[in-house]
Amino acid sequence: MNFDYPHNALNGSVVAQKIVSAVASTIGNIPAALHEPSFSGNEWEYIKSCLDSTFVSSVGKFVDRFESDLASYTGAKYAVAVVNGTAALHIALLLAGVQRDEEVLMPSLTFVATANAVRYCGAEPHFIDCEMATLGLAPEPLREHLNTIAEIRSDACFNRQTGRRIRAIIPMHTFGHPVKMDELLRVAKDFKLTLIEDAAESLGSYYYGRHTGTIGLVGTLSFNGNKTITTGGGGAILTNDEALAKKAKHLTTTAKIQHPWSYEHDEVGYNYRLPNLNAALGCAQLEQLPAFLENKRKLYGRYKDSFTDIPGVHIVDEPAGCKSNFWLQTLQLDIGDLAFRNSILEATIAAGYMCRPIWTPMHKLKPYINCSRASLPVTDLLELQLINLPSSASLVKNT
Amino acid sequence: MNFDYPHNALNGSVVAQKIVSAVASTIGNIPAALHEPSFSGNEWEYIKSCLDSTFVSSVGKFVDRFESDLASYTGAKYAVAVVNGTAALHIALLLAGVQRDEEVLMPSLTFVATANAVRYCGAEPHFIDCEMATLGLAPEPLREHLNTIAEIRSDACFNRQTGRRIRAIIPMHTFGHPVKMDELLRVAKDFKLTLIEDAAESLGSYYYGRHTGTIGLVGTLSFNGNKTITTGGGGAILTNDEALAKKAKHLTTTAKIQHPWSYEHDEVGYNYRLPNLNAALGCAQLEQLPAFLENKRKLYGRYKDSFTDIPGVHIVDEPAGCKSNFWLQTLQLDIGDLAFRNSILEATIAAGYMCRPIWTPMHKLKPYINCSRASLPVTDLLELQLINLPSSASLVKNT
Repeated sequence: MNFDYPHNALNGSVVAQKIVSAVASTIGNIPAALHEPSFSGNEWEYIKSCLDSTFVSSVGKFVDRFESDLASYTGAKYAVAVVNGTAALHIALLLAGVQRDEEVLMPSLTFVATANAVRYCGAEPHFIDCEMATLGLAPEPLREHLNTIAEIRSDACFNRQTGRRIRAIIPMHTFGHPVKMDELLRVAKDFKLTLIEDAAESLGSYYYGRHTGTIGLVGTLSFNGNKTITTGGGGAILTNDEALAKKAKHLTTTAKIQHPWSYEHDEVGYNYRLPNLNAALGCAQLEQLPAFLENKRKLYGRYKDSFTDIPGVHIVDEPAGCKSNFWLQTLQLDIGDLAFRNSILEATIAAGYMCRPIWTPMHKLKPYINCSRASLPVTDLLELQLINLPSSASLVKNT
Repeated sequence: MNFDYPHNALNGSVVAQKIVSAVASTIGNIPAALHEPSFSGNEWEYIKSCLDSTFVSSVGKFVDRFESDLASYTGAKYAVAVVNGTAALHIALLLAGVQRDEEVLMPSLTFVATANAVRYCGAEPHFIDCEMATLGLAPEPLREHLNTIAEIRSDACFNRQTGRRIRAIIPMHTFGHPVKMDELLRVAKDFKLTLIEDAAESLGSYYYGRHTGTIGLVGTLSFNGNKTITTGGGGAILTNDEALAKKAKHLTTTAKIQHPWSYEHDEVGYNYRLPNLNAALGCAQLEQLPAFLENKRKLYGRYKDSFTDIPGVHIVDEPAGCKSNFWLQTLQLDIGDLAFRNSILEATIAAGYMCRPIWTPMHKLKPYINCSRASLPVTDLLELQLINLPSSASLVKNT
C-alpha cells in the first residue's frame, strides 16, 4: 500500500474529484443508484399468471418452482424460500441448534441482520476479525482467538471467559467475495462448531467451483431489492441435508402438521414462507441471473480500468480460486482515515453517484457493544477504507 | 340449545347431508375454497407501475400510500405496514413493553401466531376462556381469574403462582366478530395491563362504531392470502400514539438511524417492512373492501336462510352493538361431540366444500401445553361446535 499518499481532508477533496471523474467515465454522467434491479424478462408474465390463479400467498406453483430453480442453480440439494434473508438466518441458526444464552461467532464487519438473527434465538454474537484478502472472516485469527478463550468439554466448545457454549460460526461472503471456506471448516471441525454460511450477498459466487451457501451445513440467501436478483423481499435456506430441509420448511410454515382440516402445531414456528407473488418475481429474475452476472463482471473490469491511474485507491478483486458475483463494486483506499473517506463519499453523492461506506462494525453498535470479541484491527481499518460504488448490472448499457 | 337432538356419528351423517345441501343451495354446486381472494380492481395496474418504477422492495410510494389508506379507512392515526400479521403481533408486544419471562393473557382459542409472537419476546402466554356471545375473550371469567391469581405490586400485575409479571392482554376478534372491548379495557385498567388488539381477522369490523384494532393501545391486521383483503403476505400495526408509531417503523426497519450513508442501528431491530410490490396489491385490494364486505354480509344472510330449518345447528351472528366483517362464515352445532363434528367436516369436504373446524386451542398444543391457564370450559366446547363454511366474497355471484 502507498502510505506516502497525503490524506488530509483537503487532499481528500482533490482525490474525491478524481474519483468522481473515474466513476463518470465508467458509467456515464447520470445519477446512479447503489444497486437497482432490472425487470426485463418474464416478470410481468409470471406475476400476471400468479394473480390470475388467485394463489398469491403461501401456496402456489411459483414457490415450488423458485425453490427447485434455486437448488438447481446453486447445486444445493434443497432450497426453502422464505420472506427475507434475515428470516433465513434466523431459521439457519435454529437448524444449527443455537439456543438461548449460547454464543455464535461471526465477523464484526457484516450487515446487522447477522447479529440480530443470533439475538432472535436468545443467543449472543461473538465478533471475529476479517482479512484483507477476502474482506471476510479471517481463519487464522479465529483459530488463535479460540485457542485463547475456548475449551472443549463433552464434545462441545465453551467460552471460558463467559461460561457459555459456543455453538456455531457464521462467515459472510462480503459484497459477494467468498471467504476461505476450507480453512474455516477446519477450525469449525477442530472446535466442534457448526458452520452456517451467510451467502445473502453472494448468489452467483463460487469458492473453488462450489456455489457459496452450499458448503457449510446450511446457507442463506437474500433477494432484497438491492441484491443481484430480487423478489421484492425474500430469501432462501440452502442445505444438502434432507432432514434439515424438512425441518426448515416446517419451522417456516408455523410448524403445522399436515392434515385435511386439523390445526396442530408441534413446536414454536414462524410465518416465514415466501408469498407466491414474490416467488413469481424470483423465477423471472433467476432466469436472467447469468446475464446480470456477466454485466456485473464487465462493470468490475471497467471500474478497474478507470481507477488504475488514481494513486492511493484500488478496486477490490475477487479472491484467489474464487469467482465473485461482484454484487457491490468496492473501492479500497490505501489509508484508513475517516475525514478522507467521508470527503470522497460527500463528493460522489453530490455528483449523483450513490456510494456507501461498509457497515459500521457490529462491535461499535449500541445493542452489541458489550458482546465478546477478538482483537479486530483489520475490521477497524476496513471500515475506513471501503466505499461501494454504483453497481447495478444495467449500468454497463450506459457506456 | 337443542340438546334433544341425537348426536351419534350415524345421525351425524344424516345431519351432514342436510348441511351439504344447505351449502349447495347457498353457493351452488361447485367446489369452493374456504376463502380465496378476488383481483378485479386495479391490482395489475398498480403492480405494473411498481415494476416499471423498479421500486419493488422496502422503499416506494405504494408502502406510504397503503399505510395512509389503512389509517384513513380504520380511523387509526397511524398505520405501519409489515410483512405479515405475525410480525405485526411481535412488534405490538414489543411496543407494549413485553419482556423476557413475563406473561401475556390471551384466548386459548386463537390462531397459533398470537401465542408464537409472545414466545418470540421470550415471554409466556397465559390462556383465558372465551364466551359464546362473541367467540372471543370473556371479560368476567378473565376478571375472576385475575382476582384469584394476580396481585398488584409497584403498579404492576404479578402472577402469584409463577412469580412472573403479567404485562399485557391480547383479545382477538374471532372470524371478524368484535369482542367486548369496553369490559376488557376495564379489566386491563384495574389490573394495570396493556391491551393490544389482535384484529388479524377483523378488517372492516366495528365495535360500537369504532374500527377494531384502533381501541387498544396497539392493534394488528393481517393480509394473508385467506383474509378479507390480501397483499400476498402482509400485515399492519395500528395505533393512535405518534411515539409508538415511530417506534414501530424503527423496529420494523432494522432500527437503522436515518443518515445519507452511515449504517447505525441503535437497538435490535427486525426486517419486517412490507415490500412495495405487496403494498401495491394492498392498495388495489383496499379500494374494493367496501364491495367485499357487502358481498360477505349478503353471503351471511343467505347461509342464515339456508340453515334456518336444520335443527341442531345455526349460523353465528354478529355480536350486539357490533358490525362484523363476516370474514369466515361459521356454523355452530348445538352439541359438542368430536365424532359428530368430524362427520360433518368429512361430508362437506367430500362434496367439494372446503370447511374447517376452529383451531385446536392453544392449551392443547405441544409447545403451550404447560402454560398457565384459567378454567376453559367454553373454549373446550367451542372447539367441538364450530365449523367454518366457504366464505369468499365472490361466492355471492354464483347464486
